[in-house]
Amino acid sequence: MTASLKAIDGAADLPAMMTALGAEARAAARVLAIASTAQKNRALAAMERAIRAHAAEILRANAEDVAEAKAGGTTDAFVDRLTLTQARVDAMADGIGIIHDIADPVGAVTERWQRPNGMTIERVRVPLGVIAVIFESRPNVAADAGVLALKSGNAVILRGGSDSFRSCRAIHDALVEGLREAGLPEAAITLVPVRDRAAVGLLLSGLDGNVDVIVPRGGKSLVARVEAEARVPVFAHLEGVNHVYVDRAADLDMAKSIVLNAKMRRPGVCGAAETLLVDRAAESNLAPLVTMLLAAGCEVRGDEAVQRVDPRVKPVVDADWDTEYEAPIISVKLVDGVDDALAHIAQHGSHHTEAIVTADETTAAKFLNEVDAAIVLHNASTQFADGGEFGFGAEIGIATGKFHARGPVGAEQLTSFKYRVHGTGQIRP
Amino acid sequence: MTASLKAIDGAADLPAMMTALGAEARAAARVLAIASTAQKNRALAAMERAIRAHAAEILRANAEDVAEAKAGGTTDAFVDRLTLTQARVDAMADGIGIIHDIADPVGAVTERWQRPNGMTIERVRVPLGVIAVIFESRPNVAADAGVLALKSGNAVILRGGSDSFRSCRAIHDALVEGLREAGLPEAAITLVPVRDRAAVGLLLSGLDGNVDVIVPRGGKSLVARVEAEARVPVFAHLEGVNHVYVDRAADLDMAKSIVLNAKMRRPGVCGAAETLLVDRAAESNLAPLVTMLLAAGCEVRGDEAVQRVDPRVKPVVDADWDTEYEAPIISVKLVDGVDDALAHIAQHGSHHTEAIVTADETTAAKFLNEVDAAIVLHNASTQFADGGEFGFGAEIGIATGKFHARGPVGAEQLTSFKYRVHGTGQIRP
Repeated sequence: MTASLKAIDGAADLPAMMTALGAEARAAARVLAIASTAQKNRALAAMERAIRAHAAEILRANAEDVAEAKAGGTTDAFVDRLTLTQARVDAMADGIGIIHDIADPVGAVTERWQRPNGMTIERVRVPLGVIAVIFESRPNVAADAGVLALKSGNAVILRGGSDSFRSCRAIHDALVEGLREAGLPEAAITLVPVRDRAAVGLLLSGLDGNVDVIVPRGGKSLVARVEAEARVPVFAHLEGVNHVYVDRAADLDMAKSIVLNAKMRRPGVCGAAETLLVDRAAESNLAPLVTMLLAAGCEVRGDEAVQRVDPRVKPVVDADWDTEYEAPIISVKLVDGVDDALAHIAQHGSHHTEAIVTADETTAAKFLNEVDAAIVLHNASTQFADGGEFGFGAEIGIATGKFHARGPVGAEQLTSFKYRVHGTGQIRP
Repeated sequence: MTASLKAIDGAADLPAMMTALGAEARAAARVLAIASTAQKNRALAAMERAIRAHAAEILRANAEDVAEAKAGGTTDAFVDRLTLTQARVDAMADGIGIIHDIADPVGAVTERWQRPNGMTIERVRVPLGVIAVIFESRPNVAADAGVLALKSGNAVILRGGSDSFRSCRAIHDALVEGLREAGLPEAAITLVPVRDRAAVGLLLSGLDGNVDVIVPRGGKSLVARVEAEARVPVFAHLEGVNHVYVDRAADLDMAKSIVLNAKMRRPGVCGAAETLLVDRAAESNLAPLVTMLLAAGCEVRGDEAVQRVDPRVKPVVDADWDTEYEAPIISVKLVDGVDDALAHIAQHGSHHTEAIVTADETTAAKFLNEVDAAIVLHNASTQFADGGEFGFGAEIGIATGKFHARGPVGAEQLTSFKYRVHGTGQIRP
């Protein structure tokens, strides 16, 4: 990489620079695709050490970013997402250790069968190629996404928010140190080395076929822009408008515990519940559920039946049913059994995560079968929508589309496959 | 469907008609997604019977299409692809019987694991939704694609070449008879009811999110247009520039048999070999392979070393290495061992199907591991690149991309998955 690429604010010829960067990432992807598990793990171990060793530089760079953001008058929430602490740097290093320890998905034979002519066919996992990750203010995404891509044998091009540029560069330097120690190409984890926002548009174009998939990590406007403009596949979710349906056959204590957790454990995560559907056939469940939510500090919105439970319940408007609050707010509705719940979810759900609480196995099976969502749960909280909770070690996001990846996108979901055919001279009749 | 939609040449308001058609397909997809295997198979059995029962109408409609095409002055090859015979109608019906008999992919649990907190997570196959199949002159694709989509629980919108419009309509009528007999929605298999070519552009737009994937079946210009314009995912392959590498450790008799089959069994299929790479370390294999190909009526193109074998060998030009001949022509090159073969394939291959002939297991493993193609074969013919030969029953095409489907696209590849989580009241700490 030439010195000019190190310029913070722009490059003389951004399109040419981005094209070169794509070609270098493609070349690195070819090397990574056939790198051994041991070599990739050597790099990951070195990266974990480097992040810990360079914590001071990372925090110093981050302090500059934070100072600039504050001077620019951003919100407290934004500054919080941007700010790194020693604990957050430690967590980043710990995360690399977790990825080091998970199984290497590349090379795994997922199916093997023999044909009548004696040929054996194997389906084996291979990397996707080059992944572009476009994220906003959280600088730790640079480490999370970089190492997950590496573990799955992919090259990655990282484009962080311009506010976190210095932090990302310091983290990236540590990751590259790990690549170098393991003898892997430095372009395996590339950081777009300029803040120029036009770089995002160029990434979305696919860089002459050198970007295989784009993963947006950030708010709705970023994800919507990426989905609208990308000329290559995108692993994205726009929102999680998730429901908990409390069926007539629900155990009330279990329902209370699950609803409270689904909404209030962390109201801002994409797996949080936004709407509670209560079966009218067990309308007596409504009051204790609403009262519990109000007592926990959750704003409750509902129609007149729900408002009758407590004067603090606010009127619900149509738009509420389609809203991801990302806040301690919940909309509540009485429905006429599982069919009505399914109809409501089909109309308003975002194909993310949906849960039913019931002791009736037949009703549960119907719900799990008929709801069209990446994750459907019976008698468990929607907040389990998370790659770590699924046992994937880590995730790069939760996909709500149906193509390739769906649900938590971990190392395995960042792979494709090929067919290996073993013959003894077979020809086709 | 109103009578006006039955107009052959156009609709008063094509965009509105196509939008309505997308919405109807989406509604049908919801029904199909939860249809039982028995109900889908009842429809398939009825379709097979209906195709046989209406063979005369189908052949009559086809004769009109063929007459129009001949009057318009098309090529013989085009007329051959367009023409149906009793044997071809029988084959279409037989094909439906095969799809009837394959396993239903929907609902299959492909993975199941338990989390430390006692939750069980299952990964289960679900349909993709609505598939649009855009094809050219072969009317049998209407039946093949329609029934494969149905088996996998998807609704399908078929758009055939305008030259085969009457044939497709007659086939479609028979398929709809089967849907009706099984009580499934008629929009489950929709035929775009007008010849207006603008319908293709509207399909590529995704019809307001009601098309989930587009499958182009046809020549390079169709596939290229679809890949360039589609606003939704595409299962496509642009071409199969496939290689057979004859390693120094190859058995010559096996190599001759495989090379002859790979090129000459059916030179026009996408799994046909286009380039023969011969290891220079066993240069003595070159002459018998080239002589055999010439004797079989294959045109051979090569550099001076290859030309020395026989005066009938023609000079190769650079463009040959990137050409899918779809004809009895092969380009031949001496390479310096497996590494040179891999480099040539990396530069010129189209990620479709690649084969090595060798008795050396280490070399074979290296080749199968390092070649980036949907299908890699050791000691077997490239012509096995076919869903039927893989045991998939049938295929809608061979995908060379790495997303979602790769290789032969059968019923299983037309599904996605969701996670079903079974709990006993678990909440996330």
